Amino acid sequence: MAEDIKAALAGFRGSIDNLDAALIYLVSERFKLTQKVGEFKRDHDLPPADPAREEKQIARLRALAQQSHLDPDFAERLLRFIIDEVIHNHERIRKG
Amino acid sequence: MAEDIKAALAGFRGSIDNLDAALIYLVSERFKLTQKVGEFKRDHDLPPADPAREEKQIARLRALAQQSHLDPDFAERLLRFIIDEVIHNHERIRKG
Repeated sequence: MAEDIKAALAGFRGSIDNLDAALIYLVSERFKLTQKVGEFKRDHDLPPADPAREEKQIARLRALAQQSHLDPDFAERLLRFIIDEVIHNHERIRKG
Repeated sequence: MAEDIKAALAGFRGSIDNLDAALIYLVSERFKLTQKVGEFKRDHDLPPADPAREEKQIARLRALAQQSHLDPDFAERLLRFIIDEVIHNHERIRKG
């Protein structure tokens, strides 16, 4: 690969790596919050999943995705991917 | 549900919603960058996927996840989920 092409690609990748680090920290913070919610739900005997809440979250994020020119279907799949992990964690918290 | 429990849950959820909005904007920005990379790769006849690069990204994000107390396996699955979409988009760009 020519040096100028290599340098251009490295520039793009450096920016992607920075966004990915931010993404990890953000998702980590989100799990810290949902961990607290899981404990709160266990302590107050609330069910781990809340389909009505999830429906609202999905609708809101689809609208945000549209505004920021992200494919709303991808945004929905991404959120479901994260929520599935959260519910899995909540079930673990419930079981102790 | 008692009013104080409702209020506490609403507080948690407001924070989760804020993080989710940030997440959508961040992922949207990431796709804008990978869209440029896709076009750059097409213009310079580079393959859409780069397994060596992906391996490095995964290893780096696993380490970042560990530092921020996020399950590294989940971080890896999340990145693969996003990368799969990027490769899919790059293939679409290549096909015009």
